[in-house]
Amino acid sequence: MGTSHAKRLFNREIEGAILAAVCDVREDRMVKAREEFGDRVKRFLTIDEFFADADIDGVIIATPHYDHPTLAIRSFEKGWHVLCEKPAGVYTKNVRLMNEAAAKSGKVFSMMFNQRTNPLYQKMRELIQSGELGEIKRTNWIITDWYRAQSYYDSGGWRATWEGEGGGVMLNQSPHQLDLWQWITGMMPTRIRSFCGFGKYHDIEVEDDVTAYVEYENGATGLFVTSTGEAPGTNRFEVAGDRGKLVIENGDLTFWRLRQSEREFNQTFKGGFGEPESWKIDIPVRGKNEQHLGILENWVDAILNGTELLAPGEEGIKSLAISNGVYLSSWLDDWVELPIDEDLYYEKLQEKIATSTFSKDTKKDVTLDVSGTH
Amino acid sequence: MGTSHAKRLFNREIEGAILAAVCDVREDRMVKAREEFGDRVKRFLTIDEFFADADIDGVIIATPHYDHPTLAIRSFEKGWHVLCEKPAGVYTKNVRLMNEAAAKSGKVFSMMFNQRTNPLYQKMRELIQSGELGEIKRTNWIITDWYRAQSYYDSGGWRATWEGEGGGVMLNQSPHQLDLWQWITGMMPTRIRSFCGFGKYHDIEVEDDVTAYVEYENGATGLFVTSTGEAPGTNRFEVAGDRGKLVIENGDLTFWRLRQSEREFNQTFKGGFGEPESWKIDIPVRGKNEQHLGILENWVDAILNGTELLAPGEEGIKSLAISNGVYLSSWLDDWVELPIDEDLYYEKLQEKIATSTFSKDTKKDVTLDVSGTH
Repeated sequence: MGTSHAKRLFNREIEGAILAAVCDVREDRMVKAREEFGDRVKRFLTIDEFFADADIDGVIIATPHYDHPTLAIRSFEKGWHVLCEKPAGVYTKNVRLMNEAAAKSGKVFSMMFNQRTNPLYQKMRELIQSGELGEIKRTNWIITDWYRAQSYYDSGGWRATWEGEGGGVMLNQSPHQLDLWQWITGMMPTRIRSFCGFGKYHDIEVEDDVTAYVEYENGATGLFVTSTGEAPGTNRFEVAGDRGKLVIENGDLTFWRLRQSEREFNQTFKGGFGEPESWKIDIPVRGKNEQHLGILENWVDAILNGTELLAPGEEGIKSLAISNGVYLSSWLDDWVELPIDEDLYYEKLQEKIATSTFSKDTKKDVTLDVSGTH
Repeated sequence: MGTSHAKRLFNREIEGAILAAVCDVREDRMVKAREEFGDRVKRFLTIDEFFADADIDGVIIATPHYDHPTLAIRSFEKGWHVLCEKPAGVYTKNVRLMNEAAAKSGKVFSMMFNQRTNPLYQKMRELIQSGELGEIKRTNWIITDWYRAQSYYDSGGWRATWEGEGGGVMLNQSPHQLDLWQWITGMMPTRIRSFCGFGKYHDIEVEDDVTAYVEYENGATGLFVTSTGEAPGTNRFEVAGDRGKLVIENGDLTFWRLRQSEREFNQTFKGGFGEPESWKIDIPVRGKNEQHLGILENWVDAILNGTELLAPGEEGIKSLAISNGVYLSSWLDDWVELPIDEDLYYEKLQEKIATSTFSKDTKKDVTLDVSGTH
């Protein structure tokens, strides 16, 4: 994704921002950067040189997940604004340190949760946050349209390993939905019981199939189902509340709106069978889904004009905490309460890395065309 | 439901069958029966008299759930054919005895799984059983449109108690879907991890909200979500397989058909991102949903002409075993393997009955109009 962001900046697509420097430890990428951007954009082949000599105001971090927090912390210490790719990191223990460094620096910190720019999800959030749906009873996201074939995993030896990526579909494909799940509902689970399939559909060691059951403080329950092994997958998000039901599927937002609160109806109705009158409403959704460009612009606007962030960086820890909780519950084959035991999670992850016997027969890393991804 | 079946027989809606006798221990119902059917239909106010003197060939059992197996066993011993209302019973321990008695008698035994007559479900089953969908990967039924207000539960003191009904939404509302779930897929779970809310939305002691996660022998996973506390609910059944995805929702059956097996594509595809071509197909569904009448006719046909049963009675134990497993998993807060430990289940159920402190402030039982129910 770094290349794509760099090109946008270079092409002056984001008002108020220019591409001043790029850093990549892979030499061939720097050769390409020179071809693409010429010598006016400084190039760095080591992290240390980059932090020593880059003359910049802000940095976009688009590295392997493990490095996000450490690089962000160094950036904040340099007094740079930070836009970080998802996920915030691999484990919450050091993402917490990143958030602390951000707060201490006072710099503008945003996460690349580009799906927050989708008017569909913004509208669903507005209907919930404004009280239209009433108290939430259940959330249910089936997000199985992250299909990947074996060739995807084989394109990089680091892919889908505990050491290289720290996770599978929960960490690489689903962070957007995990973020939207908590952002739209405004609720974080209080406990999780999850069921992961590790290398179920592919020759990998991390999970490629997940069913997670969660409970919330208000008594609501939730489900999150994701997979890279189903084709064609489903993307259906349902939230049931006291005043009806919201469903996003096939790009449409539908609201089944009750004319009366269900809790009230339950107490006052005197017949045997009956339920509150409900209206099926096609919710109009307006506006453009600006995606990555929208987040980039918002971040630069926030730096220059103090505009409110759509995806504050500190919120990256939320989806990661859910994701960490899902792994932990599956590893322990037990309930996991949130906030999770960060030390235990870190310890278990190190065990997975240490005991990994996974070696993939790949000749070299392949740079995939990500134009079709999110 | 008994009254409705009796009327159908009395009105000669089922070719080859006549209503010869009715039995109900409630005197007012017998008064009504006399008004309705006159004296040519024999009336019995006690079970013992009924079994001693009824001159019949077959019996429809539409009593409280607990009595289904015992009454069926007595009927088989009399040499009668049996059509039993769902669920087969409350616990599998005695339903197994019922099945044994049925086998021994050689009589025609059917369950009132009237939703098996629905061409929509029959078609989905056919697409799976014929191999069109390929190996199943996931099943997911959200069946939350069983809304009940408190007044429903208050209409009978026996309702929604462990002693009176032996369960809630899993035993009273969802048995049809539990049956269709296993009948359509042809698969029974091998283990269950479930999460029940007991009296979550109503003043009752049994469950009115359930999320059940299951695993199958072939590695597939499944979800069954049901509730009587949501309005308007959802009825959406999705089955993902190696050759695509089937979804029933809003009365439509849609097949997303892959042109190539996913497992094959996974191994042969060489690109980074890509998935097998899929066609969205609206599956034509023909035929009439005969519901109760269809099952009645089929049972009588089987007796008279040896027609194959659509809902063999012995299969009632399957959905009940799932339902028992769901309770047990939730009570134990742990995995439950299938076949379940029937003695343990029976023991736990007796504990629930013994420790019940539930007394509902209801003056008398009310007979609800069931014309809108299934």
